[in-house]
Amino acid sequence: MTTLSPTPRSTVRRLPLRARTDRADLYAVLDAGMVCHLGIVLGGAPVVLPTGYGRIDDTLYLHGSTGAATLRAAARGEPVCVTVTHVDGIVHARAVMHFSMNYRSAVVHGVPRLVTGDAERLDGLRAITENMSPGSWAHARGPNRRELAATAVLALELAEASVKVRTGPPGDDDEDVAAGGVWAGVLPVRTVFDPPQPCPLLPPDVPVPAHVTDRH
Amino acid sequence: MTTLSPTPRSTVRRLPLRARTDRADLYAVLDAGMVCHLGIVLGGAPVVLPTGYGRIDDTLYLHGSTGAATLRAAARGEPVCVTVTHVDGIVHARAVMHFSMNYRSAVVHGVPRLVTGDAERLDGLRAITENMSPGSWAHARGPNRRELAATAVLALELAEASVKVRTGPPGDDDEDVAAGGVWAGVLPVRTVFDPPQPCPLLPPDVPVPAHVTDRH
Repeated sequence: MTTLSPTPRSTVRRLPLRARTDRADLYAVLDAGMVCHLGIVLGGAPVVLPTGYGRIDDTLYLHGSTGAATLRAAARGEPVCVTVTHVDGIVHARAVMHFSMNYRSAVVHGVPRLVTGDAERLDGLRAITENMSPGSWAHARGPNRRELAATAVLALELAEASVKVRTGPPGDDDEDVAAGGVWAGVLPVRTVFDPPQPCPLLPPDVPVPAHVTDRH
Repeated sequence: MTTLSPTPRSTVRRLPLRARTDRADLYAVLDAGMVCHLGIVLGGAPVVLPTGYGRIDDTLYLHGSTGAATLRAAARGEPVCVTVTHVDGIVHARAVMHFSMNYRSAVVHGVPRLVTGDAERLDGLRAITENMSPGSWAHARGPNRRELAATAVLALELAEASVKVRTGPPGDDDEDVAAGGVWAGVLPVRTVFDPPQPCPLLPPDVPVPAHVTDRH
């Protein structure tokens, strides 16, 4: 399946021109992110927490302490919503009510599955680590039995998802464009990496590996 | 009230050392953000959407089309959760299970109030615009009656909120530090603004105003 098949919930209703329906767009937004916002219902109210994630094909992996209330609820079969957002620019319009953001966002709905198989648990943890820092899984010490026992891994299938992307200049009213006198345009926003800061406990001769220095 | 009084829901249970309880910390995290993630329960399932916001004292303002399902639900008195997250660094540990992020996040719980008074509606919209781009409210055309009629403004009191901040190097196990052989440290992450891109419909002689060029 190379396109997203919208369900009622994943159909973009507001500004549908911004909706993207290629599965490749979904992958691109998810893979470019470092943190998702995981929503779950606890006691009838929503809770939204930032957390890491990773993707393998059409499965999104999340992990957390086995003691975390949100993770426990998700593992019990409660529905979740996972949203990844990139802000690409601040759209300055000629009228304040036309101000907007240029952005890419992906919203995934579903009921996650608690991963129990050892191989898939490791695959999921590797995907999460590699999404945070590509190359780190092979570089650092792998999980030991104690660490694995304290960690829950959840899998969320990318079956119900929507993607929205806004690009380009402001969409002002013709009268405001004609009136002039107000600057309009986009202030681009970008995420950058600054020089790595070695751990103070590290001997001074340990080189920063290429997978860290080369990231951009 | 200068400190946050935790309720059961806003008490940080995971890694409580990361919790901050000064109201100033909450303000700082909120004011540094451009987009929040708004969580609401629709049909028993959570929905998490990115949206703009603004703060005045202890009130957070959100706005949206009067036709948006999430906004309509929030205006009906449904509980929401508003989360703002800044990623400040990728924490590379000596063991993959100690990888983490340096971050600042604020989580606000509550039932928003639909703002009906004209003056407060304008105050809220101004706060949202100014949070997106300080100086823009005075520069661009203000809202007209038609635009105001199509826009819902919601107010969420900052009564129940938590703040978490992680800074500093990885927290590795002593054995991994002693074993050596793995680089560890923080790759800092920062949001930057690139040079403004004027709207193509703008005459070439319109200067970029200082409130846009000076932003950093």
